[in-house]
Amino acid sequence: MADVLAKMMSGFPEWLPAAKRQEKRILDIVAKVYESYGFTPIETAAVEKVKSLATTGDVSKEIFGIHRLAGEGENKKAEFGLHFDLTLPTARYTADNFAKLQFPFKRYQIQKVWRGERPQKGRYREFYQADIDVIGDGTLPLHYEAEVVQVIYDIFTQLNIGEFTVKINNRKLLEGLYRQQDVDDMNATLIIVDKIDKIGKDEVVRLLIKSGLSIEQSTFCAELAEKKFSVSQALEFIQELDTSDELLAAAQNELKTIFDNLSHLPDGAVIFDLSIARGLDYYTGSVYECVINGLESYGSVCSGGRYDNLAEKFSKKKLPGVGLSIGISRLLYLLFENGRLDTLAPTPVQTYVVLFDESQRPKANKMATEMRANGINVEVAPSVKKFGKQIQFAEKRGAKFIVIPEQDREDQMKNLETGDQEDFSVEKMRGFLSS
Amino acid sequence: MADVLAKMMSGFPEWLPAAKRQEKRILDIVAKVYESYGFTPIETAAVEKVKSLATTGDVSKEIFGIHRLAGEGENKKAEFGLHFDLTLPTARYTADNFAKLQFPFKRYQIQKVWRGERPQKGRYREFYQADIDVIGDGTLPLHYEAEVVQVIYDIFTQLNIGEFTVKINNRKLLEGLYRQQDVDDMNATLIIVDKIDKIGKDEVVRLLIKSGLSIEQSTFCAELAEKKFSVSQALEFIQELDTSDELLAAAQNELKTIFDNLSHLPDGAVIFDLSIARGLDYYTGSVYECVINGLESYGSVCSGGRYDNLAEKFSKKKLPGVGLSIGISRLLYLLFENGRLDTLAPTPVQTYVVLFDESQRPKANKMATEMRANGINVEVAPSVKKFGKQIQFAEKRGAKFIVIPEQDREDQMKNLETGDQEDFSVEKMRGFLSS
Repeated sequence: MADVLAKMMSGFPEWLPAAKRQEKRILDIVAKVYESYGFTPIETAAVEKVKSLATTGDVSKEIFGIHRLAGEGENKKAEFGLHFDLTLPTARYTADNFAKLQFPFKRYQIQKVWRGERPQKGRYREFYQADIDVIGDGTLPLHYEAEVVQVIYDIFTQLNIGEFTVKINNRKLLEGLYRQQDVDDMNATLIIVDKIDKIGKDEVVRLLIKSGLSIEQSTFCAELAEKKFSVSQALEFIQELDTSDELLAAAQNELKTIFDNLSHLPDGAVIFDLSIARGLDYYTGSVYECVINGLESYGSVCSGGRYDNLAEKFSKKKLPGVGLSIGISRLLYLLFENGRLDTLAPTPVQTYVVLFDESQRPKANKMATEMRANGINVEVAPSVKKFGKQIQFAEKRGAKFIVIPEQDREDQMKNLETGDQEDFSVEKMRGFLSS
Repeated sequence: MADVLAKMMSGFPEWLPAAKRQEKRILDIVAKVYESYGFTPIETAAVEKVKSLATTGDVSKEIFGIHRLAGEGENKKAEFGLHFDLTLPTARYTADNFAKLQFPFKRYQIQKVWRGERPQKGRYREFYQADIDVIGDGTLPLHYEAEVVQVIYDIFTQLNIGEFTVKINNRKLLEGLYRQQDVDDMNATLIIVDKIDKIGKDEVVRLLIKSGLSIEQSTFCAELAEKKFSVSQALEFIQELDTSDELLAAAQNELKTIFDNLSHLPDGAVIFDLSIARGLDYYTGSVYECVINGLESYGSVCSGGRYDNLAEKFSKKKLPGVGLSIGISRLLYLLFENGRLDTLAPTPVQTYVVLFDESQRPKANKMATEMRANGINVEVAPSVKKFGKQIQFAEKRGAKFIVIPEQDREDQMKNLETGDQEDFSVEKMRGFLSS
């Protein structure tokens, strides 16, 4: 693994500058793609009331509470806690500001979240999430489910980190098919089949039997979870569903809308994977996961789905939605860890102005100002040193050019990659840097 | 004040989307200017060890400690607290990672910080800071002090929020001049004169006398604090200093370097203001503040200065530095409050594709995809509605264009500002949007 992590407190990752620049590049791409679909940024407080946070099942164990240290004698019962995801804050924000928002409310949110879980490699206590949701007032058209998958596709294409696969499934489909086999405990079954990629079919069958299913039921569910289809195969499969079952009829309609809208994507980018069952807490329809090909063992790097009512804890209004969440810190970790991503230069310096005499600094500054006004990142030599030393320093900073102010002839610029030297001109340099 | 604040918890501001987009615009400009000087981004954990935080004098009262809620029986003595500024984290980061960093280390850091102080208008418990520092290994050339002021100038120029003034002073200068008047308690005196813009000269004299200075000493200090000079006047003033005093000799050298390097800035952008004495904790030389003209009563929106040793708490190495800090949340608040800044459109949508029939959606999506590939933010109609309703909706989203997919003739585009309608072309639209 490249040297990317600064010395850090356990679970609180800090990147070295060359890695942080890569994180920033990725966050910028993600935000840009989100905005290209009209998602608007919001940012919520890092804290929520503990009574809001603590009702969300398992995760509540992991909440960091906060309290003012000054109040030594004060009641230490924390009223506020750090948010552990961006979904609950968005639900609260949407309910609180309902009258001031436009629906469908398409928001994105890129923030740190905090969880008190045991830190492991790539599993942090503090990490970046980058989420979108489309939230409807009362109803939400199905085509937004395809849009969310399209957003995932655009982002992972633009990140340029190798091939990836978006897996799609539908909770109503699984529940409908299970029901036809008289499986009662849907959630317990979904939790087990969701593990099939990690533990294999035989182990899934064993666990299902242990959970109370018959051999026939267990085999059915495990074999179903093994099915993976291309988009065209998926359309065939859902065509044959028994739509006298209302859940299956709904699933057919939902999946058809998604796959119809995604049929233009390249083969293999999207698959229909009947093992995906995630999001037991609030997902109610289609669900998605994205894995990096070759890094499947790390699990999904992005996931999402459709829910019937995002803000039911905060509002009587029905606010259905569809969203996705990218775990940026974890993604970055596994890309660095597996050599899928290089660090960038340790600074954004593109051009370095050499100084042979401190009296040239005003001229050097003037040249730097002109370049900055033209969108070029420039550093002027910290101090006068020998030419070779300055070139070394410029290269370490990551500069592509050095500029040499001259007295008796045209100022010079030198391309540090090709070695070419020529008369200085901002326009030429801009051309080289943008090519 | 425009409607900018979402319903929020006291002291934890949340902007409505149209205001959050403005905050993002400002943060992007700030980052871009920082990078244009070669500052590289770092980001540190939101938490620091309480034992690091709690030794920094007054602020320690305001620290939010964090602890895991799950450990009900656990020791509630918080080991970690949320950082209250970005200076201490940078000092710790620089010391921890000394061997992996290049010096001068020019880093920027844009993050939230948290303080448990009583919330007031524009004074928050959670707010964004955007900082830079140049940190040297052992020594740091004086020209970086001018660079920091130049960065302030570039940022406030690019923000385009009206005129502003950067005030410069030097702690060594004040201490040298006070010493010549036999003033003993430097810090107490500096704290009082720093208030002169708010409380006036007479009150400063009264407080100085109360603090133990003679009438003559008090009058001298107050009259000194009233002095404000242009750059050329400043250069004259410091030329006349008694440089047999080593503090005054150092001040003269430091100020001359700064003002020489800033002499190209427009008249009035930078002034030499002898009342500025801020940063008693660690500033040791030049200090800066920036105020928005006409909003001086709000105090400075940006401040910084030179310090001898940033990381003395964390390292035996001498790491002198110069830096600045912009309180973004407060700046935003006062710009909105005073009508100096408008909110943006509530979404980043530039173009809206109209739908008259759901069967046109695939075509509309294809057109949207082409526009997105060309850097245009596009939303396709959520559902089929009457033309007028769709135009209204597009305008509410902030779209500049609508696009109308056609069946039997060329697709159309309509400029919502001018009403002009013509055949659709991505290139033409790009041209209009970028002009």
